[in-house]
Amino acid sequence: MSTPRKAIGIDFGGTSIKSAVVQSGSILERGEPVDPQQFPESRTLVAAIVEIIGALRAVHPEVAAIGVGLPGFVDSQHGVVHNLTNVSGWSEVPLHDQLTARTGLPAIVENDAKAMAYGEYKHGAARGFRHVICVTLGTGVGGALILEGKLYRGAQLAAGELGHTSIDYRGKVGPYGDRGGLEEYVGNQQIAERAREMYLKAGRKITAAQCQPLDLAKAAARGDAIALSLWDTIGTEIGCALTNAVWLLNPDAIIIGGGVANAGELILAPIRRTIRARTLPLVHEKLQILPATLGNDAGIIGNAELALEAVGTIG
Amino acid sequence: MSTPRKAIGIDFGGTSIKSAVVQSGSILERGEPVDPQQFPESRTLVAAIVEIIGALRAVHPEVAAIGVGLPGFVDSQHGVVHNLTNVSGWSEVPLHDQLTARTGLPAIVENDAKAMAYGEYKHGAARGFRHVICVTLGTGVGGALILEGKLYRGAQLAAGELGHTSIDYRGKVGPYGDRGGLEEYVGNQQIAERAREMYLKAGRKITAAQCQPLDLAKAAARGDAIALSLWDTIGTEIGCALTNAVWLLNPDAIIIGGGVANAGELILAPIRRTIRARTLPLVHEKLQILPATLGNDAGIIGNAELALEAVGTIG
Repeated sequence: MSTPRKAIGIDFGGTSIKSAVVQSGSILERGEPVDPQQFPESRTLVAAIVEIIGALRAVHPEVAAIGVGLPGFVDSQHGVVHNLTNVSGWSEVPLHDQLTARTGLPAIVENDAKAMAYGEYKHGAARGFRHVICVTLGTGVGGALILEGKLYRGAQLAAGELGHTSIDYRGKVGPYGDRGGLEEYVGNQQIAERAREMYLKAGRKITAAQCQPLDLAKAAARGDAIALSLWDTIGTEIGCALTNAVWLLNPDAIIIGGGVANAGELILAPIRRTIRARTLPLVHEKLQILPATLGNDAGIIGNAELALEAVGTIG
Repeated sequence: MSTPRKAIGIDFGGTSIKSAVVQSGSILERGEPVDPQQFPESRTLVAAIVEIIGALRAVHPEVAAIGVGLPGFVDSQHGVVHNLTNVSGWSEVPLHDQLTARTGLPAIVENDAKAMAYGEYKHGAARGFRHVICVTLGTGVGGALILEGKLYRGAQLAAGELGHTSIDYRGKVGPYGDRGGLEEYVGNQQIAERAREMYLKAGRKITAAQCQPLDLAKAAARGDAIALSLWDTIGTEIGCALTNAVWLLNPDAIIIGGGVANAGELILAPIRRTIRARTLPLVHEKLQILPATLGNDAGIIGNAELALEAVGTIG
């Protein structure tokens, strides 16, 4: 093990599949992005991914493994994708077997939030902590846990679903009968819709498309009272869901990532304030609540790391 | 290690301190119970506990270690009791040092719910499971986690506080600024008070003292509509708090113990129903939701086990 090995990390998002060759946590070469919505069947989409892998290996033939993270419920032990949240045509897909058969390389398949958390743990904001809660704020709200210095997966490898934990047991109904789940309040679309309604109430007609997190962050920076108030509300709600996780897990650190987290202190400040206000000093005094640092590459890097670690076992 | 070793397990409850000599998970000899409320200072109470230990050792001189579980925040690493929830005079008490100095035996100090969970894990309902959430329903609502087959303690050794996790982020205010914490709804006194109010509304005057869990379980067994409805509500609320823990931890099993759990199916049925209704089949289909089996001895046995395991390290 003189030279650090290379792996391809693939981050399967709802609107874009990003890939790269990674070595020691650094991106060496990026693959062409793929839009999953253009492939209604998993079979053709897998073929497109295999093509990208081929192109990357042409430049880096010494790639030792492939790691793919997907937004949904994944059996990482058998490499099977149970189902994806925002992509159709994916039900019980044996992705591991398909990839190894077509590439001849060892591969791992993981939930996207877990892969991102692992990337942040190995090379980003979560490095050096022992017990970490990672939350990813985007179209959906993902979560993952590092406990005792290891990615915690749970009995059916489905742990970490912070987005489905509830802040209000009589609240909004979610996709699995869950009520008051965090994602129903602070997912991208929910934020946009809430903003639109608030502006409408204030007599300002505006579409939800004009209320994306970036627009609302800019508005808040200009001192827009509605945007400021909404960020505070959203941060409080995320803080409440995290407070429950803090009481349960007593972590060293919470890492906040995903597009919505780009709002920075607008969202971090109310998250920190809420957790401090609702927990015992013993559990919050040393707790670090930090933004993710790997940005959009966290998933790619985490998947590559998980793939390389698995090579020791399966290669 | 031919003969299994013996340890003294001590379960420090708010109204009674129970103790026994334990060997291989069996109680050999019980100590005289002590009422902690009669000792306003920790110093005199520790002296009373040391006396009980002496009496037990007179019968079993080969006792190898002492384990004490206490209802509050405990630094199990340094053997210091930060504070107790329902007993005054206990703040930053170096109980480990006091016990070892006065008995000459190795000792461990642990949170009571964690010790009970460990007892159930080694010799009771949680045996054989890998990821377990344990909840103790009594004066307070305690919790503890077994993850990856080990007692999970967290960064400040304070993990597992299910009673402070919230079911309603705008709900009742708890002792640490927490709002909607489970304990505020289903602690013994809260249950009694809720029952009293429901009976009053129905034109039946009754005191909270007549609405203890046992009374309400008997009333429900007689078909009393108010008691039946209240048990269903309580079970639903506990189920909602556990649902959050299930999404987060994807456990194999949930073990329900403590006095309130003696209501049996009255409370287990709505807990099971709620978790099933609010989670994905993947995470609830194989999930076992079981009553604790060691009853009042779970703490004594768990503390003795933890003490014996520590002897390997500290003895």
